[in-house]
Amino acid sequence: MFEYKNNELYAEGVRVKNIVDNVGSPVYVYSKGHFKAQFEKFNKAFSREHVIAFAIKSNSNLAVIKTFASLGAGADIVSKGELFRAIKAGVDTSKIVFSGVAKRDDEIEYALENDIMMINVESEDELYNVNRVAEKLNKKARIAFRVNPDVDPKTHPYISTGLKKNKFGVPYEEAYDLYLKAKELKNIDVYGIQFHIGSQLLDTTPIYDASVRVADLMRRLTDKGVEFRVVDVGGGVGIVYDEKTDKEPDVNLYARQIEEAFRDFDVKLVLEPGRFLVGNGGILVSKVIYHKTNGQKNFLIIDAGMNDLLRPSLYKAYHKIAPMKKTGSKAIKCDIVGPICETGDFFARDYEIEDVPNGNFIVVFSAGAYGFTMASNYNSRPRPAEVLVSGDSYRVVRERESLEDLIKGEIL
Amino acid sequence: MFEYKNNELYAEGVRVKNIVDNVGSPVYVYSKGHFKAQFEKFNKAFSREHVIAFAIKSNSNLAVIKTFASLGAGADIVSKGELFRAIKAGVDTSKIVFSGVAKRDDEIEYALENDIMMINVESEDELYNVNRVAEKLNKKARIAFRVNPDVDPKTHPYISTGLKKNKFGVPYEEAYDLYLKAKELKNIDVYGIQFHIGSQLLDTTPIYDASVRVADLMRRLTDKGVEFRVVDVGGGVGIVYDEKTDKEPDVNLYARQIEEAFRDFDVKLVLEPGRFLVGNGGILVSKVIYHKTNGQKNFLIIDAGMNDLLRPSLYKAYHKIAPMKKTGSKAIKCDIVGPICETGDFFARDYEIEDVPNGNFIVVFSAGAYGFTMASNYNSRPRPAEVLVSGDSYRVVRERESLEDLIKGEIL
Repeated sequence: MFEYKNNELYAEGVRVKNIVDNVGSPVYVYSKGHFKAQFEKFNKAFSREHVIAFAIKSNSNLAVIKTFASLGAGADIVSKGELFRAIKAGVDTSKIVFSGVAKRDDEIEYALENDIMMINVESEDELYNVNRVAEKLNKKARIAFRVNPDVDPKTHPYISTGLKKNKFGVPYEEAYDLYLKAKELKNIDVYGIQFHIGSQLLDTTPIYDASVRVADLMRRLTDKGVEFRVVDVGGGVGIVYDEKTDKEPDVNLYARQIEEAFRDFDVKLVLEPGRFLVGNGGILVSKVIYHKTNGQKNFLIIDAGMNDLLRPSLYKAYHKIAPMKKTGSKAIKCDIVGPICETGDFFARDYEIEDVPNGNFIVVFSAGAYGFTMASNYNSRPRPAEVLVSGDSYRVVRERESLEDLIKGEIL
Repeated sequence: MFEYKNNELYAEGVRVKNIVDNVGSPVYVYSKGHFKAQFEKFNKAFSREHVIAFAIKSNSNLAVIKTFASLGAGADIVSKGELFRAIKAGVDTSKIVFSGVAKRDDEIEYALENDIMMINVESEDELYNVNRVAEKLNKKARIAFRVNPDVDPKTHPYISTGLKKNKFGVPYEEAYDLYLKAKELKNIDVYGIQFHIGSQLLDTTPIYDASVRVADLMRRLTDKGVEFRVVDVGGGVGIVYDEKTDKEPDVNLYARQIEEAFRDFDVKLVLEPGRFLVGNGGILVSKVIYHKTNGQKNFLIIDAGMNDLLRPSLYKAYHKIAPMKKTGSKAIKCDIVGPICETGDFFARDYEIEDVPNGNFIVVFSAGAYGFTMASNYNSRPRPAEVLVSGDSYRVVRERESLEDLIKGEIL
């Protein structure tokens, strides 16, 4: 839903220039239309009973969460803060699943008090802790184990999570024993099974492979009297960052494969898409401050930094970058860098882009996921505003931080 | 100033356990005594007139800045937000230098209005912009050029900044011409020269080498009538992260070398230490939540994450980690990881540490620099509290964020 008309970028029906003129720079701009379209594409792919639990960590703005909640989505949360956000945004708590390796007692309590769908338990220590907290509250905790199917998602080492050497989940061999132990615990309701093998998967076959392995485990456990009511297949469905090399996953195929893998079980499916729903529904708009040449290298210096969008620095992630207004000036090859005093503060290196004069704007695409959520105040920079566009109108859904916000809570 | 007494960690005269019991976990704890001792060590090393401009980006807590300001320090700032902090903390603005490649007009205005010592200009575009903004304000802007002496600091690619291919500074050959151009600008007062070749230097010889090159340039420019009143040699003096491999730089040697390099010039020296002053004056205390074994790998899962301390994830930086209370239990080899749903969320890998039971605390050392300043709310986690210890007492200098703080400025 970001398109050039007469060489100017529009977010749905809104000229992006209007937004930046009014709200300032840098600014995140989201397209509600894109969010809805992605949700519907994903939702329609499944024919069995399912819950789409939006992975809030990808974009946790309240207005974004609410957008999905009003379409019927639940939430995949990983902290008390994310549950707080989900509740504020009106997510039906019976559609919330809670993952994460380090759930504290107060987080487990908060989840049980709000009667969420289930807690995805990631270790034996956590199992006994959930049981203990539930006992204290006189409740029965619905749980799934996050099972580690040990399927290599062939992805970046930092975002591959389903391998034995990673901190996530319970080893496949151990899960069998843990389910039998859990069944005996008074304050545990063995409710489902979960897995998640990695992020930004463009080929979803590894998810199918994992599903088959998990279904095998379920069969063995069903024989022992474990009743599964939910299978949560995690997230990880990727998006196109680079049009030259990436191809959007076929969600219809993905859905068919998952439904096929679990055809023997009368379960509700839970899906945890995050990036797929929001990634290409967001851009970061930034002003060009200076041009500069150091030796043979050109630099386009912009007013956004790694504090605003960390992905290029942290993962060396590729983002498409283009002028907000195409003027037909000749292309330059340059590093696009920010104001932060670190060599690692860059958005692209040796990137070919139509030259953009100082004072004009550039757009970093595919910034809807893991953009603002990872923003910091590094170098004492207030975090940018977030804007949600819907049709011909837009509104600020998070105000730009002020200098006073930077020192909130500090006591001289 | 962090020491074990009877196997318990103390920050100066305060038992760290008392702090964490009262303030909660995770928490940053700083030692004012360490800050002062490092400042004095650095300060006494110089015999010529000098200003120690504390690099605020390393630790921008107001109480920390104030600690140095009251010892006579100035500030090295890189943004409007940092200038705001410096002023709030009572730094003498005549001791403030402003670096950074992307200074916006409003930042330049703010600096000129507050009459700071000088603006370190990093490109020709910026020179003309500073002149233009100064003209608008009817002021004369004191400037230095940040000159790139192109000396390899033999350090991590992300924190080496003095090379030609980096975004920082003005190439050595170009600087000569720029000084002559600047001299002719009506609203520019050519005041000094600056360079900065990289961070965490344990061998300061590259700084001496750079100084010699910069002094040569100054001689050529002095012949053309440029009068230098200040030489700003940047920062970059490192600290010991790993006691087994690192050796603290000899600041006396460092000072002698710099004074020797500029012996021909009647200038005030500006030094920009950051990490050296605060790095080992801070720790991050975190609670062990769970133990876990995945295959052959052990995990110690703690309640702090990469959102609290990014350095291990971003730079694969080493931090010493130890129990807050040594109990003599046997050592384990483990990954020490946090709650964030990313494989990259770790503090150490395959690390040998005396085992710490769930519910007890571990300490991440050398967290005083680039710790809290890089913290984010990723995974909707409130940022930790900061505590400053002085002698036998301590106080919270920044409160732990609340859930409500997470959604400040968001509009449903």
